[in-house]
Formats: sequence, structure tokens, C-alpha cells
Amino acid sequence: MKVEVAKKVLNENDRLADELRRRFETHGTLCLNLISSPGAGKTTLLERTLETLDRETRVAVLTGDIQTDNDAARLARFGFPVKQITTGGTCHLDARMIEKALADWRPNELDLLFIENVGNLVCPAGYDLGEAAKIVILSVAEGEEKPLKYPSIFSRARLMVLNKTDLLPYVPFDMERARQNARKVQPGISILEVSCTTGDGLAAWQQWLAAQHPRVRFGVAV
Amino acid sequence: MKVEVAKKVLNENDRLADELRRRFETHGTLCLNLISSPGAGKTTLLERTLETLDRETRVAVLTGDIQTDNDAARLARFGFPVKQITTGGTCHLDARMIEKALADWRPNELDLLFIENVGNLVCPAGYDLGEAAKIVILSVAEGEEKPLKYPSIFSRARLMVLNKTDLLPYVPFDMERARQNARKVQPGISILEVSCTTGDGLAAWQQWLAAQHPRVRFGVAV
Repeated sequence: MKVEVAKKVLNENDRLADELRRRFETHGTLCLNLISSPGAGKTTLLERTLETLDRETRVAVLTGDIQTDNDAARLARFGFPVKQITTGGTCHLDARMIEKALADWRPNELDLLFIENVGNLVCPAGYDLGEAAKIVILSVAEGEEKPLKYPSIFSRARLMVLNKTDLLPYVPFDMERARQNARKVQPGISILEVSCTTGDGLAAWQQWLAAQHPRVRFGVAV
Repeated sequence: MKVEVAKKVLNENDRLADELRRRFETHGTLCLNLISSPGAGKTTLLERTLETLDRETRVAVLTGDIQTDNDAARLARFGFPVKQITTGGTCHLDARMIEKALADWRPNELDLLFIENVGNLVCPAGYDLGEAAKIVILSVAEGEEKPLKYPSIFSRARLMVLNKTDLLPYVPFDMERARQNARKVQPGISILEVSCTTGDGLAAWQQWLAAQHPRVRFGVAV
């Protein structure tokens, strides 16, 4: 019975996510779903992104947290629309939460919608939010075996961002092994190395984003 | 209906956890449930603990992972019994998994049982495993606001271990704020600062453990 209810919930989520995906496609909105462990740097990567985006790019952020609206406050500083979704205990965002959050916005006028999921490398992987792509962020402080231990998200992400590369001299992280592990789980995954602290690698991240959508442009060089 | 089923599952878990707790108490086994984000250092803290425990202390480890048995292999090197629980996708351990894993062991002969939960700061908080205490491990690379963002686990943990203090010079982590945030969520929480890399603070961790159980002793100074 537990399994049946879980299936029903997921089917309903998939149906809603398909609706969202069609809406995003109709309006030319690129929706990206950012997933990582707590503290891997999703919010900081978004800060670095928003501060360098061309002001003509119509971008918005939905940011999920179990409690607090710290992340929304951090991201709102850049002047683009940001909305917090506080899940109140739920370990992931689902399509219904996205639909509700968008209801009083105007997503049809967006070029780019970032969804920052709840900090959790497990549960968000199973919930389609209608995004064009999932992006998994892995901090080098976490260890290079994570793609093998949490294969669900790494097998579904189009891109893995290896963040906090400035910490490489101080942590036992084997970059080549991390790449191999991710590709074992998903041979076609794209991989970027960045440090949001020093700015290393952020130009490649900007190029990756710009390549996904003709209206996503960066006005400030990193 | 979803809520009702979830309640039923949790009630059944609580019943089983109570049974486990009575068994542990009857046999004088101290059971500790270690919870953290992926990569915060649960396995490394256990490595440092096992290698310094007095060989007379009867200790065992149950280690949970979604996939792989890397952690069990790492921990087995110290000669104490270690058993992997591979959840196959489930985002937390539950009391049934613990009961099953213990069925062919002899937990009545243990002084100390460590349970290393799945790397997830959210879902494991809600599942009682019959432990005497939950211990939350937070890496300083994750950020000092985590107790506020993930209050469920921080409000239920008896002890917070702030790990990777060797990285403090390289990350923007405010130690005093981290302590304040944890105490905001739970005024009575104990707090230790350790670096499993340099060994700093591990003596205090040993003392904390030894204070929980008269038969837990350390043979090797850190």
C-alpha cells in the first residue's frame, strides 16, 4: 500500500511537471534545477551568476529551503525577482510547489528560471519539476566517491559542477577520480570545475549557460 | 491518505525502535546514530575512533549507504565488526533495517554500536533507530547557518561535532555564529570542534564517548 501511494504521488508529480515543461517551452523559458548536498555552494554559484548576468536577460530564481529565507535574501540583492519556497520539513521540491510559486509571477516573460532545490543529494533527484536540465553541484570538500554513492542524481544531471576548487590543496580530493566516477554513472555528463571564491572556472560556467539559450548573456567579465 | 500512510509507517518505526532501545538497554549497549550531509566526515570520524579504541571495548558499526560498500570496507580495516546496509535508493535508515542487520549478529555482547546513517541532513532526523543519542556532524565547509536551515536534526541531536576545523583558514565559517545557531534550535546541545585530518579536538571526542559508557575506553592517545 505504501508503494502504491508513493507511485500515485510520483505519477501526479510527473503529470504536473509535464504541464510546467510545456509552459516553459511555449514561452521560451530555460528552467534549470540545481541540486546538491547542504553547503555545496548552490546559493553562492547563483550569486556569482546573477551579479554577472546582462541586465537585459530576464531571469528569476525560486529557492527551496526547509526553514528560513536566508537564501532568497542573499539572492534578492542583485535586483532580479527571487522567491523563497519554504517546504516546512519536506526534503525536496515538487512540481506542485513550483506551480504554486509561479502562479502569481509571470513566467511567460522569463528567459531563464533557476530552481535552487533543498540541500539534499538524495530525494530531489526523483522529482521532475518540469526543468530542461538538472545540474548537480559537488563540493571538493565532500569527496570524489559521491557519484557512486548517490547515483540517482548523477545519472540524471546534464552537468556536474565541481565547486570550491580553491580548497583542493587542503582536502584529499582526486579530481580525475571524481570525473571517472561521474562518467561511470553517466557517460554523457558534462563537467565544469569552478571556485565561486576565486572566480576560477566561472567563465566556462557562463559559456555553458549562454550556450543553452540565445537570450542568456553576461555583461560583466568574471 | 498520503499523510495517514506516512503516519502508520512512522508509528510502526517507533514501535520497532522502542523494542531495539529496550534490547540495547538490557544488554548495556550504547547505540549512537551519526547523521550528516554527504561528505561531512562521518566515516573518517569513525576511522579515527576505531583506530584509537581500546581493543577490549566491544564495538561494532552498522553503516548505511544508498549504493556501494566503500564505507564498510574503510571501517573494517580496524578489525572490529562492521556491516553495510545498502538501502538501494532509500534516503535514510529505519528501525526495520537495523533489526534485520542485527538479527545474525550478537548485539547483546556489544558495549558500543555506531550507526552511520545515509548522508542526508533531512530525512534521517525523523527515524528513531532505538539509539541512545543522535549525533550531528557539520563540516565547516558547509556554512554556519545550517542549524537554522535544517532544524529538525539539530533539535534532536545530543551532540554537534563541528568537523574539518583544519579548513577554517580557507572557508568563510563563523564558529561563534555556528554555536549560537545550534543553541537557538536546541539550547542544551553539546558542541565539539574536531579535525579528523590533524587530530585537533579528537581527545575531547574520546572523553565525550568515554563519559557515556564505563566500558568505552581508548588505548591510544591521539
